[in-house]
Amino acid sequence: MAILKKLAQVRSLSRAINAATKLLTERGEANSVSMANEILSQYKLLNEEQKLSFYQALATKFNPDPALVLQVAQDYAREPNAKNLIQLTKVTEPPRQELLRRINRVEGGTKEIVAMRRHLIKVLAKKPELYPLDFDMHHLFVSWFNPGFLKMHRVDWESPAHILEKIIQHEAVHEIDGWDDLRRRLQPDRRCFAFFHPQLKDEPLIFVEVALVPEISGAIGPLVDKKSETVNPSQFKTAVFYSISNCEPGLKGVSLGNFLIKRVASYLKEEFPSLKTFVTLSPLPGFMDWVIGGANLGEPAISSQATEKINKALNILNLKEKSWPERISSGWHPTTASEEEKNALMQLCAYYLTTFTVRKGGNPVAKFHLGNGAKLHRINWAGDVSKKGLKQSASLMVNYLYDLEKIEEYHERFTHGEVIYSKPVSQLL
Amino acid sequence: MAILKKLAQVRSLSRAINAATKLLTERGEANSVSMANEILSQYKLLNEEQKLSFYQALATKFNPDPALVLQVAQDYAREPNAKNLIQLTKVTEPPRQELLRRINRVEGGTKEIVAMRRHLIKVLAKKPELYPLDFDMHHLFVSWFNPGFLKMHRVDWESPAHILEKIIQHEAVHEIDGWDDLRRRLQPDRRCFAFFHPQLKDEPLIFVEVALVPEISGAIGPLVDKKSETVNPSQFKTAVFYSISNCEPGLKGVSLGNFLIKRVASYLKEEFPSLKTFVTLSPLPGFMDWVIGGANLGEPAISSQATEKINKALNILNLKEKSWPERISSGWHPTTASEEEKNALMQLCAYYLTTFTVRKGGNPVAKFHLGNGAKLHRINWAGDVSKKGLKQSASLMVNYLYDLEKIEEYHERFTHGEVIYSKPVSQLL
Amino acid sequence: MAILKKLAQVRSLSRAINAATKLLTERGEANSVSMANEILSQYKLLNEEQKLSFYQALATKFNPDPALVLQVAQDYAREPNAKNLIQLTKVTEPPRQELLRRINRVEGGTKEIVAMRRHLIKVLAKKPELYPLDFDMHHLFVSWFNPGFLKMHRVDWESPAHILEKIIQHEAVHEIDGWDDLRRRLQPDRRCFAFFHPQLKDEPLIFVEVALVPEISGAIGPLVDKKSETVNPSQFKTAVFYSISNCEPGLKGVSLGNFLIKRVASYLKEEFPSLKTFVTLSPLPGFMDWVIGGANLGEPAISSQATEKINKALNILNLKEKSWPERISSGWHPTTASEEEKNALMQLCAYYLTTFTVRKGGNPVAKFHLGNGAKLHRINWAGDVSKKGLKQSASLMVNYLYDLEKIEEYHERFTHGEVIYSKPVSQLL
Amino acid sequence: MAILKKLAQVRSLSRAINAATKLLTERGEANSVSMANEILSQYKLLNEEQKLSFYQALATKFNPDPALVLQVAQDYAREPNAKNLIQLTKVTEPPRQELLRRINRVEGGTKEIVAMRRHLIKVLAKKPELYPLDFDMHHLFVSWFNPGFLKMHRVDWESPAHILEKIIQHEAVHEIDGWDDLRRRLQPDRRCFAFFHPQLKDEPLIFVEVALVPEISGAIGPLVDKKSETVNPSQFKTAVFYSISNCEPGLKGVSLGNFLIKRVASYLKEEFPSLKTFVTLSPLPGFMDWVIGGANLGEPAISSQATEKINKALNILNLKEKSWPERISSGWHPTTASEEEKNALMQLCAYYLTTFTVRKGGNPVAKFHLGNGAKLHRINWAGDVSKKGLKQSASLMVNYLYDLEKIEEYHERFTHGEVIYSKPVSQLL
Repeated sequence: MAILKKLAQVRSLSRAINAATKLLTERGEANSVSMANEILSQYKLLNEEQKLSFYQALATKFNPDPALVLQVAQDYAREPNAKNLIQLTKVTEPPRQELLRRINRVEGGTKEIVAMRRHLIKVLAKKPELYPLDFDMHHLFVSWFNPGFLKMHRVDWESPAHILEKIIQHEAVHEIDGWDDLRRRLQPDRRCFAFFHPQLKDEPLIFVEVALVPEISGAIGPLVDKKSETVNPSQFKTAVFYSISNCEPGLKGVSLGNFLIKRVASYLKEEFPSLKTFVTLSPLPGFMDWVIGGANLGEPAISSQATEKINKALNILNLKEKSWPERISSGWHPTTASEEEKNALMQLCAYYLTTFTVRKGGNPVAKFHLGNGAKLHRINWAGDVSKKGLKQSASLMVNYLYDLEKIEEYHERFTHGEVIYSKPVSQLL
Repeated sequence: MAILKKLAQVRSLSRAINAATKLLTERGEANSVSMANEILSQYKLLNEEQKLSFYQALATKFNPDPALVLQVAQDYAREPNAKNLIQLTKVTEPPRQELLRRINRVEGGTKEIVAMRRHLIKVLAKKPELYPLDFDMHHLFVSWFNPGFLKMHRVDWESPAHILEKIIQHEAVHEIDGWDDLRRRLQPDRRCFAFFHPQLKDEPLIFVEVALVPEISGAIGPLVDKKSETVNPSQFKTAVFYSISNCEPGLKGVSLGNFLIKRVASYLKEEFPSLKTFVTLSPLPGFMDWVIGGANLGEPAISSQATEKINKALNILNLKEKSWPERISSGWHPTTASEEEKNALMQLCAYYLTTFTVRKGGNPVAKFHLGNGAKLHRINWAGDVSKKGLKQSASLMVNYLYDLEKIEEYHERFTHGEVIYSKPVSQLL
Repeated sequence: MAILKKLAQVRSLSRAINAATKLLTERGEANSVSMANEILSQYKLLNEEQKLSFYQALATKFNPDPALVLQVAQDYAREPNAKNLIQLTKVTEPPRQELLRRINRVEGGTKEIVAMRRHLIKVLAKKPELYPLDFDMHHLFVSWFNPGFLKMHRVDWESPAHILEKIIQHEAVHEIDGWDDLRRRLQPDRRCFAFFHPQLKDEPLIFVEVALVPEISGAIGPLVDKKSETVNPSQFKTAVFYSISNCEPGLKGVSLGNFLIKRVASYLKEEFPSLKTFVTLSPLPGFMDWVIGGANLGEPAISSQATEKINKALNILNLKEKSWPERISSGWHPTTASEEEKNALMQLCAYYLTTFTVRKGGNPVAKFHLGNGAKLHRINWAGDVSKKGLKQSASLMVNYLYDLEKIEEYHERFTHGEVIYSKPVSQLL
Repeated sequence: MAILKKLAQVRSLSRAINAATKLLTERGEANSVSMANEILSQYKLLNEEQKLSFYQALATKFNPDPALVLQVAQDYAREPNAKNLIQLTKVTEPPRQELLRRINRVEGGTKEIVAMRRHLIKVLAKKPELYPLDFDMHHLFVSWFNPGFLKMHRVDWESPAHILEKIIQHEAVHEIDGWDDLRRRLQPDRRCFAFFHPQLKDEPLIFVEVALVPEISGAIGPLVDKKSETVNPSQFKTAVFYSISNCEPGLKGVSLGNFLIKRVASYLKEEFPSLKTFVTLSPLPGFMDWVIGGANLGEPAISSQATEKINKALNILNLKEKSWPERISSGWHPTTASEEEKNALMQLCAYYLTTFTVRKGGNPVAKFHLGNGAKLHRINWAGDVSKKGLKQSASLMVNYLYDLEKIEEYHERFTHGEVIYSKPVSQLL
C-alpha cells in the first residue's frame, strides 16, 4: 500500500515538472489554464520531500541562458538602444517568472502560489539554492499584491464569522482571548481594518486595530480591557493604532503595513473630522535584552557625555547582581520601582530609540514606524504591565506620531539617518 | 493667458518627471502613494506634445546601466549560481517597471496607466524610441490582467445601463443598432459574458456574444434579427459564439479572448448540460481582397493540381472583366449567383483557410480560433448578406468548432503548422 | 378543441373557488401555501368572463354573517367591554380579508393580488357588486404597502436596464423620449428616486424626478432639454420636483406620493446641505377648460369685487369669438401674447388655485401638494410651451414650495380649508 | 432632580397620547410620519408604570362607537348589500388598527411596535383590559409577518457575527455552548435556516437546525457533539430537524414554524435530490409529569383493554415507592434500565402521543408537528440522556415524519381528531 502510494507520488512529481516545462515552452498560450491546473493538482499529491524536489526543479530549470545573457548584455553595452534593451529584458528575465504568471491564470492560482511560498520560506535557510525561486515569487507578489489592487475593509461585529475567526487567530501583538474579547475590540469606539485581495476574498492579509479616544494612550491595559466603557464619538480626538498583524507568512517581505496605516488614517480623518492626532501605542521587543547586554550602541562612537550617562544608568539598575527575570519573579513592578530606576530605564530607552534605531540591530518596530515617516513622540512608563511587557521592556511602551502633513519630510530625513523625536524625548538624553 | 497656461504646463512636465525620478530613487517606499498621485495629477495637465516628452523621459531615463549589466552578465556567465542570478535579475530589469508598479499603488492607478498606453499606442509608429516603454507596460499588463485576476460576469438586461452602453459602443463585429437591438441580444436564448478587472469594475475589458440554438448556425442574419423568436431552453443544443470584441485598446497584445471563450464554454456546459456543440460563426475579413489579388498562397509552392484548381476557379469568377465592387453594385447576390460561381468561391475559401492561414498574411480570425485549438468546421454560403459581408467575403462565413476534449491536441498541432479541418472542408480541396 | 379548452376553464373556475373556500374554512393553517398556490394557478387559466365570475364569488361568498353581526353589535352596544369588542372585531371583519392574507402567504402572492386588483379596477364601474372586494384589497394594500415597508432607492445610470425601461414607460407628466432623454435626466444634477416593495423588487411603484439647480425653475423646457449643460454641485441651491408618476394602477388609492416627496427632500437635504429650497414645477391640467367654461368658482359666492375682476379678465380673453384650440392653431404663444392677455390669464389662475382648489372640482395637482402641506409659491408664465402645455394651461405652470419646517402647520390649515400662498400670488388677486 | 425627571415623563405620557389622537383624527395623512415619530420618541421616555398608562389609553380610547356599530349592523342585517357591508367594515374595525398602521409608516416603526407588544405580553395577565390592544397588534402582525413577506436565509459560518450571536442566545431546545458548539452546527452536514423580515433585517425571527445524515437519528447526543465527524454529502439521505426556536416573543401567536419547516424541506430537496426523508427529532416535554400523575388520558374513556395495559405499565414502574427525581439521582439510566421498564415507558408514551395529543393537555410539540401534517414515526429509547432529557421524558425522543406528498391529507385528518402513526408505534399499543 505504502509502496503504491509512493509510486503514485513519484509519478506526480515528474508529471508536475513536465507540465511546468510544457506550460512554459509551449508556443502560444492556448492551454495554459488546463496545464496550470495539472501542475497544481499534481503538486498537492506530493509529500514533503518531493515538494522540495519540485521547488528544486523550479529553482534551477527555468533560468536564463548564461551565454545568451552575455551576448545581449554585450550588445546592449555596445549600443544601448531600444531594440537591444527590449532584447535584454526578454532574455534576462528568468523564465520562471513567466511560468509563475501562467500558473496564476487559474482561478484560485494566486492562493496556491502564496501557499507554496509559505512552505518554501520554512525550508529556505537550509536550501540556499532555492533562493532564486523565492526571489521571483517575492518579485511577482510585490506586483500582484500592489496596494492599488487591495481593498481595505472595515472588520466589525457584522463581519462574517469566518473572517473574525482569522482575526482572533492572527492577532500577534496583544492576543485576543476569545469572542468576547474580540467583541470589545469591534465596538463603536474601536476600529479594525484589513487589506483583502480580490482573488483571496476570505483572507485578511494584514489588519490594524485602532482605538478612538480623547487623548494619547500611554498604556495598553485599558485599551484592551473587555469591560472598559465605550467612548462617545463626540470625544474622539485621537486615533491610537495599538496593534498591526500580518496574517499571511507567504507574503513575507511584501510591504503592506505602511500603506494600510496611511489609508486607515485618511479614512478615519474623513469619517471623524474631529480626529486631530494619529499615533501608535507600540511595544519595545528586545529593549531589555539590549540593556542586559550592556546597552551597546555600536558604531560610530557616541559622545563621552552620553557614554557616561548610559553607564550611570546601568549602574543604578545593577542588573549583574540580580538578573532581570529574577527581579520580575521577585515582584518588580513599575508602580513600586524607585524614581531612580524609572529615570534610568527611560533614559536608556531614549538612547536606544534615538541612536540605536538607525544602527545595526536597531528595534524593528521603531524602524518600521520611523521609516514610514512617523515621529518618536513619547516613551511611556507602565505602558504594558503584562508579564511579556515587563520582561521585554520593563513595562515601557512607545507612541509614534503620524503627522500626515509631515510624514513625507520625516521619512526623507529618516532615510538619511536622522530619527525625529519630540521635546520630551530630547529631555531624556 | 495662453502663455500663462503654457508656462503652467511646462512646470507640470518637469514636476511629473521629477516626481517619477523621486518615486523611484527614494530609498524605501514610504510615500509612494502621494508621489504617484503627484505624477498622475501633473500628467493630466500636460498637452499632447508634452505628453510625448513625458513618455520620452519614461522611455529613456529609467533604463538599466549598460556597464553594470555587462558586469553581472559576465559574472553569471562565469558562474551561473543563485547569487549571480538574483543579481542579474535585479540589475537587468528596467527600473521603469518598478516605476510603473509604484504608480500603480494609487487607487485608480491601473486605470490611468492603461489610459496612458492607449494614448501611447497611437503615436508609437512615429516614435520608435518609445517602444521600451510600451514593452514594459505590456509586460506588466500581462501580469496585472492575468485571467486569474479577472472576473467573468454575465451581462444581461438587469445589468447597469452604463455597462450596457459600453457593450453597444464597443461591439466591433456586428454593430448593435440601439437599445432595442441590444435587448434582443440579451434575451434568455442569448448570452453575453465579459471580463472585468477588480480595479476597473465599470469597464468590460472584452465580451463575447453567444446564441443558444438547436443547430449550428450558418448565417448571421437570423441571429441578430431584433424580431426573431426566442428559442426554448429545451432546444438548446449548440452554443454559437457570434461576436467577440475588445473594449480597451490600451490592453493591445494582452491575450484575453482565448481565456474568455473557454471559460464561457465551461460555464455554459454546466448551466445547460444539453449543450453538445460549441462553435463560432465568424467573418472572413480580407478574403475577397486576397481573391482579387490573385489568390496567391505564397511559399512554399503547392501542388500543381491545387494550382490548377485555383486558376480554374479564378477563371470562372473572371474578376478582371468587372471588378468585385462593381458586381455588387450591379446586384450580385449569393441567392442569384450561379452554382459554378458558388463552387469556385467555396473552393478558393477552402484553400485560403487551410493552406494560407499558417502562411504570411493569413486570416487573423482563423489564426485566432485555430490557435486556440478550434477546428475549421464549415464554410457557409450566404452567411452574411450585408453590404460589408458581400464585399469582404462574397457572403461567406465560417464555423470554427471548439471541441473541449481536443483543443489541447489541436492547438499543439496548429503550433506545428497544421490546420485541422472537417471532412466537408476537405471535400472542397 | 375550443370546447375542450372551455371545459378546462370551467373546471379551473370551480377549482379556484373551491380552493378559496377550503383555504379559508380549514381549521388551522397548515397547508395554506399549497392551497393558495392552487388558487393562483387555476386563476391564471381563466378567461376574461370567468375572472369576473371568480371576483363575483370572492365579493359575495366571504362576507360576515348578518345575523351574527347584529348579535355581537348588540352585545357590544349593551356592554362595550374588551371581550365584546374582540368578539365584534372577529365577527365583522369580512372573511375575505383573511382569505386574501392567506393567498399572500405564497412567495410572489403580493404581485398576483396586485395584478388582480389592476384588472378588477377596470371592470368595477360596470360591476358595483364587486366593490367590497376592491374595498378589502385596498384596505390590505394600505397595510402591505405601508411606507415603513417600502425601500426608497435612487435610480441612476448605473441602475439595471429593466428598471430604467419601466421609468421610461411610466413617466406620465413629461414623456421620456428614449434612452438618451432618460440619460440626461439621470445626470449628476438630476435625481430620480423610487419606492420599491421587498416583495416586488423589480417594480418601481412610484418615482419622482428632481432637478438640482441654482434657482427656482419657472419653465419645464430647459429642465428636460437633452442637450442642457450639467450644473456643478457647488451651485445646487434648489431642488425642483418636476415630475411624479405612479407605476402600478393596482395600487390606486394607496397614498405613496406624499411620503416619497418628503423622504426624498430629507435625503437630499442631508446629501447637499447647500440645498435651501424644495419646490415643485407642476402642470395645471384642466385650467383652460375651467376658463373656457366660464371660470365658475362654485359655492359659496365670492366677493363682488373678485367677480368683477374675473369677468374683466374673461372679457379680455374673449374666448367666445375664437375658440382656444383655434387660437393655438393660429399660433397663439406666450412670447407673442399681449401684456393684457398675460395679466388676465395669470389673474384667473390665481383665483383658480387659491379659491377653487378647496371647492368641488378643484385642481387635483394643487390639492395633492397643498394637502401635503406645501405652499402655493409662484405661477409661471411660459412655463410649458409644448402643445399640451398651451392647450391645458395656456403655458402656465406652478411652483408649490415644501418648507419642511412648516408643512405640518400648512397641512393642518389646508385641512381646514385654507390655501396658503405667497405674496406675489396675493398680488394677482 | 428625580422630580424634574418625573415631570418630564408625565409630559411625555400626555404628549404620546395626544400625538396618537392627532395622528388618527387628522384628516388626511400628510404628516403621519412626523407624528408617529413623536409618539415613538415620547414613548421611549416613559417609565414602566407610564407605559402601562399609555397602553391603557391605546386599549380604551380607540374603539368603535357602540351606537354607530349597532346602527350599521342593523342596516347590514336588514339589507346585506355592498354599500352596507363596506359601511360596516369601516365602522367596526377598531380605529386602533389604523393608528398602529400609521405608526408603522415610520422607518423602523415595525421594530418598535413589536417591542411594545413584547412588553405588553408580560403584563397582560394582570391587565385583562389591555387584551384588545394585544388582539389588534396580533391581528396586524399576522398580516405584516406574512410568510410571503419573509425572507428565508441560510445561517452559516460566513454569516455576520451579530446574527450568529442571536442564534446562540435564542436556541431554546438544545442549548448552544459557545462559538465552538455553534461552529459544529454550521458545518457542511448541518443547516440552519431563519426567517427574516425586510424591516428587521438583523433579527432572525425563528430558526430551525437540521442535520443531514444517512439514516433517521434516534438520539440527540451524536447530532450536537462538537467533535463528531462531518458526514460526506454523498451520504445525505435524511434531513433531521432537531431544533426549532422562536427569537421574538413579541410575535407570540403568529405562526411561522410550520411555514419555515416546509420551505426548508422544499429547499433542501432541491439542493440535495438524494434526500428522501424529512423527519424531526423532538423532545417530549411533560411526558414524565403525565406518567407520574397517573397517565390519565381524560375523556372520553378508552377501552378497558387499554386501561389494563396502562395500569400494568404503571405497576412495573412503581413510581410511588421511589419518586422519579430520586431514581434519576440514584443513577437511573436507559442503558441500565430493565427491558420491562423500557417496554412500560415506551408503551405509555405510545398512548400519550396517539390518544392524549388530541385531548385536553396534550403534548404541544406533538400537536405542532401533527397539526402541520406530520406523522408520528418512531419513539426512541435513550434519545436524550442529558439530565433534562431523563427528567422530562425518561430519555425518550420522538421522530415526526414530514411526507411532503401527504402532509395535506394528514393535516386534514388530524384536524378531525385522528393521529396518524406508523406500524412500529401501533405495535406498542
